[in-house]
Amino acid sequence: MTTTTSGLTIRPAALTDVPAIVALLTDDPLGATRESPDDPALYQDAFVRVSADPNQHLIVAERDGRVIGTLQLSVIPGLSRRGATRTVIESVRIHTTERGGGLGTELIRWAVDRSRELGADLVQLTSDATRTDAHRFYERLGFVASHVGFKLAL
Amino acid sequence: MTTTTSGLTIRPAALTDVPAIVALLTDDPLGATRESPDDPALYQDAFVRVSADPNQHLIVAERDGRVIGTLQLSVIPGLSRRGATRTVIESVRIHTTERGGGLGTELIRWAVDRSRELGADLVQLTSDATRTDAHRFYERLGFVASHVGFKLAL
Repeated sequence: MTTTTSGLTIRPAALTDVPAIVALLTDDPLGATRESPDDPALYQDAFVRVSADPNQHLIVAERDGRVIGTLQLSVIPGLSRRGATRTVIESVRIHTTERGGGLGTELIRWAVDRSRELGADLVQLTSDATRTDAHRFYERLGFVASHVGFKLAL
Repeated sequence: MTTTTSGLTIRPAALTDVPAIVALLTDDPLGATRESPDDPALYQDAFVRVSADPNQHLIVAERDGRVIGTLQLSVIPGLSRRGATRTVIESVRIHTTERGGGLGTELIRWAVDRSRELGADLVQLTSDATRTDAHRFYERLGFVASHVGFKLAL
């Protein structure tokens, strides 16, 4: 658990945080069309799968007892790049009332620091091509938009 | 282990395959500048980390006893997209003498089928923006270039 100077607590998500996380996932232009907040069992089952894997770090950011942000950090060991371990940041969400207030920066900086602690050599993430504000945000934090991200739904 | 109609064997990588995998990683326009084939311990240690994680699937493609391709498939459970599990394909390499012969297609199709067996809802990968031939290749296989891929070296 980390408590920042701005009074933000960043900690591993608990099962009781799942409804708040689902609310954050849904309150998003893209998430609104692809989440099912009325089906909590889907998310509880997913939480169990995430919790069972020690290389998954699902975290929440809390202020005054209220969950206002979330992200997932995944550790991927590998052979390429001289045996580099990479972390992948997924599902970054900031509560609408908190956007533009520096919380995103605090969360991503936390994820980068945590990646270092976890022995990673590289942090990577993909962002939907339509999220141009997010792209500027990541570039300000030092990320390089060097790749094209492909997805295939099964 | 899978043996395809073209006589290709796709199987989990063993420690004894590490030199062949490193040769494939190095024999690549980008890999040439960022691999250290003269430092095998780096890669052996990385192989141990990969093998210790049941959600990492490092595989090789072999024909007539010769390793001619490799990729790594990582399973990432998560809450977003209705609790979707995704797989990430990384470090796809095809031996220079085999390029353009359909081996890449066989490997990626295998990875997509294996992702389905592993319960994934989504397969994703990133490809360096300079690899335009690879982008056309992934699009032909049904992947959608919907995202921008960011990296931060630590």
